[in-house]
Amino acid sequence: MRHAVSTAPLDAFGYTDPLGRVELREALARYLTRARGLRTRADNIVVCSGAAEGLRLVATALVETGVREVAVEEFGLPAQRGTLTRAGLATPAIALDAGGADISALDGSPNLGAVLLTPSHQFPLGVALHPDRRAAVVDWARRRGAIIIEDDHDGEFRYDRTPVGALQGLGPRHVIYMGTASKSLAPGLRVGWLVVPDHMVEVVVRQKGETEENVGFVNQLAMAEFIDSGAYDRHIRTMRSQYRRRREQLIEAITQRTPGSPDVAIVGLPAGLHVLLTRPGRLVSADAGRPAWKRLAVEPLDLFRHPCSTSDLDGVVVGFASPSPSAWPGALDALVGLLQ
Amino acid sequence: MRHAVSTAPLDAFGYTDPLGRVELREALARYLTRARGLRTRADNIVVCSGAAEGLRLVATALVETGVREVAVEEFGLPAQRGTLTRAGLATPAIALDAGGADISALDGSPNLGAVLLTPSHQFPLGVALHPDRRAAVVDWARRRGAIIIEDDHDGEFRYDRTPVGALQGLGPRHVIYMGTASKSLAPGLRVGWLVVPDHMVEVVVRQKGETEENVGFVNQLAMAEFIDSGAYDRHIRTMRSQYRRRREQLIEAITQRTPGSPDVAIVGLPAGLHVLLTRPGRLVSADAGRPAWKRLAVEPLDLFRHPCSTSDLDGVVVGFASPSPSAWPGALDALVGLLQ
Repeated sequence: MRHAVSTAPLDAFGYTDPLGRVELREALARYLTRARGLRTRADNIVVCSGAAEGLRLVATALVETGVREVAVEEFGLPAQRGTLTRAGLATPAIALDAGGADISALDGSPNLGAVLLTPSHQFPLGVALHPDRRAAVVDWARRRGAIIIEDDHDGEFRYDRTPVGALQGLGPRHVIYMGTASKSLAPGLRVGWLVVPDHMVEVVVRQKGETEENVGFVNQLAMAEFIDSGAYDRHIRTMRSQYRRRREQLIEAITQRTPGSPDVAIVGLPAGLHVLLTRPGRLVSADAGRPAWKRLAVEPLDLFRHPCSTSDLDGVVVGFASPSPSAWPGALDALVGLLQ
Repeated sequence: MRHAVSTAPLDAFGYTDPLGRVELREALARYLTRARGLRTRADNIVVCSGAAEGLRLVATALVETGVREVAVEEFGLPAQRGTLTRAGLATPAIALDAGGADISALDGSPNLGAVLLTPSHQFPLGVALHPDRRAAVVDWARRRGAIIIEDDHDGEFRYDRTPVGALQGLGPRHVIYMGTASKSLAPGLRVGWLVVPDHMVEVVVRQKGETEENVGFVNQLAMAEFIDSGAYDRHIRTMRSQYRRRREQLIEAITQRTPGSPDVAIVGLPAGLHVLLTRPGRLVSADAGRPAWKRLAVEPLDLFRHPCSTSDLDGVVVGFASPSPSAWPGALDALVGLLQ
């Protein structure tokens, strides 16, 4: 960032391209093609200040193009449902199982104009969308002229195999892809990105307020250089191994220290920055405010449940990315202590 | 900015206060109290990525509180009207004269929930809101429980006297004040601010997407330090004298080089970063794309006219802030050449 400040071109201080700095959009196009299997060019990338702003732009753009209903997974971020609702969109739920979202249900809802999915790693259940369903949802969008909003919040963090490519690669004309540096790098950067089909770029950008981009140029130029230098790839590899170890330690601690207990089960793929513990016994989220947690995020699954969900799944969602390395052992102890 | 990068606290990299960094909000509270006569504390300041995002937050917050109509001045930024319209608000026009917006007209519109004004320096006509009308609009807002949105886009730049204080100082419970570093410093920073009455802070912040702020921490911390060190005040003083000189040179060039011509008149206070030329003869905005303009902004007044305006005023609006110092004389020559 110091280098970006020192070397920024003069025009970076002014009003620039509402899509975002071209340096960053070109770096992202190369990175997303290489690392996430996207099919895109810089012209299809819209820089935004994070996934929240990205979804807001998408939601109001969809409304402007006549969409009235966007299906969402029956468990997901309530803030995302709120963003869609505030834009004036209805958000019917689609069921989840071990193969991810039940894509076959989409055909039964003739008013749907879009669906919001977390195909690589469902949040919060932790499953991946089955390959047949990946093909089916792209086929649905193609047949119906609908949009798939792909939230690839932690797609780089798969621990058992090479990450599955983004769904966008299967149907770039039907998918709006959302990515963010908030999980892979740091939320304080306020850098996220949308990858938008040609025919939607103009309407999405217009939602920014017609004339402005929303992200400071230093962060954009720094991120562009970070990607192009290879430092971002190295950072992802380093963090992938750290998060894998944390996840293994978390599971080991729980299985060893609650021996034979039927009270805890862990759901989801070896991936991402969170695990879902089902049947968590007396672990309740009220405990999560305790200092011992050291920024472990512990939330009841109910917080993420769609009001119309009929699932009887219960549990707590534990996000393990935020504690500092020195705080991690203590945070793990505090969590496991409560499970016993 | 280099210093801000080097000294940023660790928590700045994470999700922080959705209102914005407290360092910046405290610096702004002190600055706005001192320089613009606001009555505010850091708790009432919401950092945003510029005036466009600020107005979007205000517009959707007003809708959420039940507002359906926001009056706007009969000349103003079409992007601002667009932001209000997209949020679902009707935008009836109020007339302008030498005393600014005709505040007495507000009482005739019982459905108004708010009014958007540029009281210190009307954009684009360049007049100031008359002191009696300043009091009257605050009184109207108080009686009706309405909100005044004060766009203080260039309030620091008054050349004939100390700038008039912000309207917010007359009625902090009824005014949402919008400010930006885009005109005083640089658009590329993407730093703006709202000053919001206590009872509206929560609903305004919620429009950001509930959990996130939108501005990178480096820009916020750099801006905070820039203000607190006194460098921002010095910068404003320097730019005020540069812009005053440009405005004088522009007027002098026009009056000297179009002698006795009834074709050009200059409207508006000695203030701000633009002048309105009425009866501009054969100067048309199509000329503005010429390289000789060197980033002079020349726009027909019609571009800013509300569809329901009954004014017969005509002219072109010339923004003179953007040309570099070395490009300025050539840009001025090109403009005046066309007026002759």
